[in-house]
Amino acid sequence: MNIVAFSHYKEVASEDLKDSYAIVIDLLRATSTMIWAISNGAKRIIPVEKVEEALLFKKLDESVLLGGERGGLKIDGFDLDNSPLSYKSEVVSGRTIVMTTTNGTRALKKAAGAKRIFPGSFINARKTAEYIIKEALCHDIHTISIVCAGTEEKFTLEDILCAGYFVHLLKKHFPDAFLDDLSIASYELYKKFENDPHEILKYSYHYNNLKKLGFVSDLEFCLKKDFVDMVCEYKNLVVEKV
Amino acid sequence: MNIVAFSHYKEVASEDLKDSYAIVIDLLRATSTMIWAISNGAKRIIPVEKVEEALLFKKLDESVLLGGERGGLKIDGFDLDNSPLSYKSEVVSGRTIVMTTTNGTRALKKAAGAKRIFPGSFINARKTAEYIIKEALCHDIHTISIVCAGTEEKFTLEDILCAGYFVHLLKKHFPDAFLDDLSIASYELYKKFENDPHEILKYSYHYNNLKKLGFVSDLEFCLKKDFVDMVCEYKNLVVEKV
Repeated sequence: MNIVAFSHYKEVASEDLKDSYAIVIDLLRATSTMIWAISNGAKRIIPVEKVEEALLFKKLDESVLLGGERGGLKIDGFDLDNSPLSYKSEVVSGRTIVMTTTNGTRALKKAAGAKRIFPGSFINARKTAEYIIKEALCHDIHTISIVCAGTEEKFTLEDILCAGYFVHLLKKHFPDAFLDDLSIASYELYKKFENDPHEILKYSYHYNNLKKLGFVSDLEFCLKKDFVDMVCEYKNLVVEKV
Repeated sequence: MNIVAFSHYKEVASEDLKDSYAIVIDLLRATSTMIWAISNGAKRIIPVEKVEEALLFKKLDESVLLGGERGGLKIDGFDLDNSPLSYKSEVVSGRTIVMTTTNGTRALKKAAGAKRIFPGSFINARKTAEYIIKEALCHDIHTISIVCAGTEEKFTLEDILCAGYFVHLLKKHFPDAFLDDLSIASYELYKKFENDPHEILKYSYHYNNLKKLGFVSDLEFCLKKDFVDMVCEYKNLVVEKV
C-alpha cells in the first residue's frame, strides 16, 4: 500500500490521484460540518464552488438549505453558516444542503481524479479508515491519497494533524506501507501532539482566525476523535452516507 | 518579524517574497554543495537550469568547471557531480563553477522576487541566520522567507528539517515573530529529531534514493551543523561569499 499526502488542493493534479482512494480533509470546518450534518440526518450535501451556484439551486428547489462561509462567516441570504454546531438534527434531518466554502468544497472537486472520494475529519476518522481499508483490499487498490484542503492555497496545520491521524490508522493495518514525505511528516506531527493538538494549533493561522471570530466551540468539536460512527462519500457531485 | 516557509519551489510566486530576505534550501545536495565549494575557495557558482546552458558557458570560457546532476548522478561531459565531497580545495580553489541540479538551481531562480537571497544548509545555518538577523534589523526587513527546494515539486523532509533549524535560530532572536503554519510544522519536526535527523530521514524518499546511489557520506556531511563559518549570497545570478 502507498500512502501519499497533499498539503493543499492546488497541489493536486487530477492525474496524481488516478487509481487511488482519496480522503479529503478540511478539518476547520467544511468536511467536519458535512459529516456532522449527514450524521444528523441530512439526506445529502451538494458542494458547489460559487455563491451564485448555491443561490441557483435554491431558486430551482426552495426546499434545499444553503450553507457555507466566506471569510469564515455566514453568506448573505444563506440558511446556515459553516459551523458544524449549526447543523442540528431538527434543522437538517431529511434535507438536501447546498454548501460552498473557501477551501473544502474546492478540495473535493479537485479530488475528482480519484477512484473514490471520502470527506474526512477527526470526528469519524476511525470508521472511515476502517471502511477504506476493507474496500481497498477488496478492490485491489494500491494507493490511498490524503488531500488536505489547506487555507488560501497554503499548508495548514490542523489538516496536516488530521492527515497524520489517518496515516496512524492506516499504518496499523499496513505496517509496511510506503509513505511519502508529507505523510511521514504529518504522522510525526500528529504523534507529537496526539494528546493535545491545541498545544500546537494555538499558534496556527486559521485556528486563531476562527477563535477571533468566536468559534471556540467549533475548534473543540472538530478536534474530538471518532464519536461519529458513519462514513461519507463524495460521488456524482454529492456527499452522502456510504 | 514574520517567518514564512514554502515546501517546494513551485509553491513560490515571485510576489510572495517581495520585500523579504529569502533562505533557499536544497539540503541534499545543491545548496550544501555550493556552500562547501565556496568555503573551499571557489570564486563563484553560476546556477543554471539546463545542461545546454552549462555547456555553453564552458564553450565561452574553458576555465570554468561544470558541476551538477540529473537523477542524482554526474552529467555526461561535466567535471563534477553534485556531491559536496567532490568539491575539494585542490579542485575548486579560485575557480568559477557552473552548476545545474534538478531542484536547487530552480529554487534559487524562483526566489528572484526576494530582496536578498541566501543559499542555506545545516553546514552554515548558524552563521547565515546571524548575518540575516543583523542585516534585517539594519535594513528594516520584516519578513524572512524560507524556500525549500523540495523534490520533484513535492514536500521533502530533509529540506523541512533544515528549515526548522533556521526557524529555531531565528526564533531565538525574534521570540515574538509570527510563524506561518509550515514554519511552525518545520520547527516542531526539527525539534523532535534534533539529535538524530537520520531517525526520520531513513524513511524519506530522496534520502533513500541517494543512499541507494551510494552517497551515504554525503548524507552524513549535509546533516552536520555549523562547521562552515561563512555566508553565501545569490545576487546578479551568481552565488558568492558575502
